[in-house]
Amino acid sequence: MMKKVLIANRGEIAVRIIRACKELDIQTVAVYSEADKEALHVELADEAYCIGPKLSKDSYLNFSNIISVAKLTNCDGIHPGYGFLAENASFAELCEACDIMFIGPTAAAISKMGTKDVARETMREANVPVVPGSTGIVGSEEEGLEIAEKIGFPVIIKATAGGGGKGIRVARTREDFIKGLNMTQKEAAAAFGNPGVYIEKFIEDFRHIEIQVLADSHGNAIHLGERDCSIQRRMQKLVEEAPSPALSAELRAEMGEAAVKAAQAVNYRGAGTVEFIFDAVNQKFYFMEMNTRIQVEHPVTEMITGIDLIQQQLKVASGETLAYKQEDVTFKGWSIECRINAENPLKNFMPSAGRVDMYLPPGGMGVRVDSAMYSGYSIPPYYDSMVAKLITFADTREEAVSKMKRALDEFVVEGVFTTIPFHLRLMDHEVFKSGDFNTKFLEKYDVMGS
Amino acid sequence: MMKKVLIANRGEIAVRIIRACKELDIQTVAVYSEADKEALHVELADEAYCIGPKLSKDSYLNFSNIISVAKLTNCDGIHPGYGFLAENASFAELCEACDIMFIGPTAAAISKMGTKDVARETMREANVPVVPGSTGIVGSEEEGLEIAEKIGFPVIIKATAGGGGKGIRVARTREDFIKGLNMTQKEAAAAFGNPGVYIEKFIEDFRHIEIQVLADSHGNAIHLGERDCSIQRRMQKLVEEAPSPALSAELRAEMGEAAVKAAQAVNYRGAGTVEFIFDAVNQKFYFMEMNTRIQVEHPVTEMITGIDLIQQQLKVASGETLAYKQEDVTFKGWSIECRINAENPLKNFMPSAGRVDMYLPPGGMGVRVDSAMYSGYSIPPYYDSMVAKLITFADTREEAVSKMKRALDEFVVEGVFTTIPFHLRLMDHEVFKSGDFNTKFLEKYDVMGS
Repeated sequence: MMKKVLIANRGEIAVRIIRACKELDIQTVAVYSEADKEALHVELADEAYCIGPKLSKDSYLNFSNIISVAKLTNCDGIHPGYGFLAENASFAELCEACDIMFIGPTAAAISKMGTKDVARETMREANVPVVPGSTGIVGSEEEGLEIAEKIGFPVIIKATAGGGGKGIRVARTREDFIKGLNMTQKEAAAAFGNPGVYIEKFIEDFRHIEIQVLADSHGNAIHLGERDCSIQRRMQKLVEEAPSPALSAELRAEMGEAAVKAAQAVNYRGAGTVEFIFDAVNQKFYFMEMNTRIQVEHPVTEMITGIDLIQQQLKVASGETLAYKQEDVTFKGWSIECRINAENPLKNFMPSAGRVDMYLPPGGMGVRVDSAMYSGYSIPPYYDSMVAKLITFADTREEAVSKMKRALDEFVVEGVFTTIPFHLRLMDHEVFKSGDFNTKFLEKYDVMGS
Repeated sequence: MMKKVLIANRGEIAVRIIRACKELDIQTVAVYSEADKEALHVELADEAYCIGPKLSKDSYLNFSNIISVAKLTNCDGIHPGYGFLAENASFAELCEACDIMFIGPTAAAISKMGTKDVARETMREANVPVVPGSTGIVGSEEEGLEIAEKIGFPVIIKATAGGGGKGIRVARTREDFIKGLNMTQKEAAAAFGNPGVYIEKFIEDFRHIEIQVLADSHGNAIHLGERDCSIQRRMQKLVEEAPSPALSAELRAEMGEAAVKAAQAVNYRGAGTVEFIFDAVNQKFYFMEMNTRIQVEHPVTEMITGIDLIQQQLKVASGETLAYKQEDVTFKGWSIECRINAENPLKNFMPSAGRVDMYLPPGGMGVRVDSAMYSGYSIPPYYDSMVAKLITFADTREEAVSKMKRALDEFVVEGVFTTIPFHLRLMDHEVFKSGDFNTKFLEKYDVMGS
C-alpha cells in the first residue's frame, strides 16, 4: 500500500480523500492556494504547502509546483479529486515521468475518453450503444448537413474537447445547423484549443443515468450500479440518487455490462463513470461520455453498496487486485445526494461567497455530510460554489426523501445564501416525489416559484 | 400513526427523537428547564415550553408540568428518552390515566423489571438463565449468610430498586458480607426509598453483553442481536459495539431467544434491552437486568441492522404491528460507539461544563454523530456529562476502529475538556484492538497513562 499521498485539490473532495487515506494509514500532504490558508483540508492533512496565488491557474492547476511538493515530501501518489487536474492527460503523464502514481487511469485512457469523437468511435467498436450521428469529426458544413438530414433534426453539435455540459449546441433546422456549427467550432477553438465538433441525434427527453465502474491494473473490471442525475440546472447536476427510479433490474444489468465493456475498451484503471442518455419512453440507453475520475456524486453509490470508492482508488493505485467480483456487489436501500451550493436560489442561483458565521451540519441515522465548512470559515469567491454534499440513506426512496427533508431543515449555514431552500422545495415537489421526471424537470417546473 | 409527540427529555436523545418524529411526519413538542433555553432540542422542535428551573427534579422530573404541556398542546404521546422518567412506572401510569400514550412499555412491565428481585424470579420462571443466588429479597443477616455460603464467596449484594451500577456491593468474606449487607440496605433505603436487597454469586470476569428486543402490543417480539458494552469505568459504559467480538452465531441465537422470552414474560411493548453477564471462559450467560427503555447505545444496533429503533418505538406506540419478523432481521458490518463526555480524562474524568467555543463534528462515509452541541453552546453543569455519541460503521471491526480513530481525530470541541483524547488512546490500545477483554479492562489498563 502507498505510504504517502498528495491531494491536488481543495474543498470537500480534498477532505474526503484525506479521510480515506487516514483510514488506510496513508500519510497525507495537502496543497493550497493563498486564498485557502484557513481551509479545512489544510488543517486535516499531516502536512500542507502553499502552491500559489488564489486563481486556480496559478495554484491548483500549477503542474510544476504540485509535482515539486510531491517530490520534496516523498509522496508515492497524487490524488487529483475531480475538476482541476483530474482529467488532464498531460499531468497524468508528467506524474508517470516523475515516478509518482497518478491516482486515476493512465494518460492514454484519459485522452481517449476526453476526446469525445474518439470516445464515441471506441464505444461503437466495443459494441456500446451510441446515439446515431457522425463518424468522428465533421469535416465540412456540407458533410455535417448531409449527416444531420440523414439522422433527422433536431441534432446536437458537440465539441470533441468539451464535456460536462460545455461546448454543446442544439440545431432544429438547416439554418440553425449552419449557424450553430460555425459558432460551436469557433467557441471550441477558443475554449479548448480544438475546433473539432461532431454530430449526434438530439434526444429531447431523457434521464441522465450513469454507471460507476471500478477496475484494477490486472484486467479486472466491475460495475457498482447506476446513479440517476436527472435533476440538473443548465446541465449542472443538483441532485443525484441511487438506484434510479426508472431502471428495471434487466436494464441495470445491461447498462452495467455496457459500462464494463466501455472501461475495458480503454484498459481503464481505478474508479470511473460511464454516463448514458436513457430514453425512458423507448427503454433505450446510449453512451454519452465517460468521466475518467471520481465524481461529485460518488457517495450515493457508496451508501447502497457499502463500498468506499476513494479507498478502492487508493488500493487499485497501490497495485492491489480488486477485492470485489461482480457477484460480491449487492445493492441495499436508497440514497439521495443534494449539492449544497453557496448560491442564492431566489436570485437566479447567483454565487454567494463570504463568511459562514455559523455552521451546523445535520446528524443522526442515515445522514452523511461531506463538507469543508466550519463556523467562521470564509468561502472564497474563486472556486466552485459547491460547499457541502448532504447525503441520506434509508430503505426506500420515500424514506430517503423524508430523511433529506428533515436533514435539510436542521442544516445551519448562516452568513451566506445556499441552495438549501431550493432542495427543501424540491423534496416536497409532487413530480420529484413521483420519481417520474427527466433532465428537463427544472426547465418545466419553477421549484422556487409560489 | 400518532400526530403529535412531547419529548420529555433534553440533549442528544431529545434531538434524536425529534429527528425520528420529523421523518415520520409527527409534530414535536419540546420541554426544557430554565438552563436549557438555548438548547438544540428547543430549536428543532415545532413547539417548546419551559417546565421549570434548572434542577431536574423541578423540570425534567416534574410530572404535572410535563403532563400539562402534553394536554394543552394536544399530544398523543410522550417519549421519555432514557434517564429522567423513562423507567418511572408512576409516570407511565399517570400518562395512561390522562389518555396519553407513554412511548414505552406498560407501567406493569416497568415495575416488574425495575424491582430487581421480582425481575430475577420472573426470569427464572421463564427459563432465562439467572446467576445462582437468593430467591427474592434477603429477609435477614442469617438468611443472607446462609445463601452466601451455599453459593460460595465472592457474592454480590444488590438493591432491588437499584440499577445502572448503583446500589451494588461485592462481599468476599463473611465479615465483608455482614458489613456490606447493612450498608447496602441503608444506602438503598436512602437513595431509592426501598431497603430490599438480594444476593447473587459474583462473577469476577465477564463481558457485558446485552440484547436489543422489540415488541408490539399484539404479542409479537423479536430481537435485534447483541451489543457488547464491556468497556466501562465504574460501571458506566464508555464504548459499545455491535456485534460482540466474543459471541458465536449459536450463542447469539441462544441469547436472542432468551431475551425474547424475557420480554414476553412481562408482556413487553416497544424497544427494550436485556442485559446479560457473559462468562467468556465458560461460554455461559446470565440475566443481569432489563432496561425498559431506549438505551444510549442503541445506534450501533441501528447501524448493523438498518432498523431505526426510535421510529419503531413510535410505530409500536401508535398500535402498529411489528414490520419485521425475526427472519427479516439481518446483520451487516460492524459498528462502534464512543460516548463523548464533557469530562477531563487526565483529571480523573472530572466534569467540565461551560461554553463550547467551536464545535465541528466529523463527517464522511460510515460516520454518525448524535449530539445537541453547536458552536457557542454552553453545556450546563446540572445534567449528564455525555454531550455527543460518535458512531462508526464499516465492514469489519478493524475498519470500524480505524474509522473511529480518524473521526475522533477530526472532532473539534473547543472550550471544554472532553473524553475524545481517552477514546483516541483506547482505539490504539492493543488489548482493545484484539477484542479480547472484559468489564475490568479499565481497571487493568491505564489508558491515559504513558
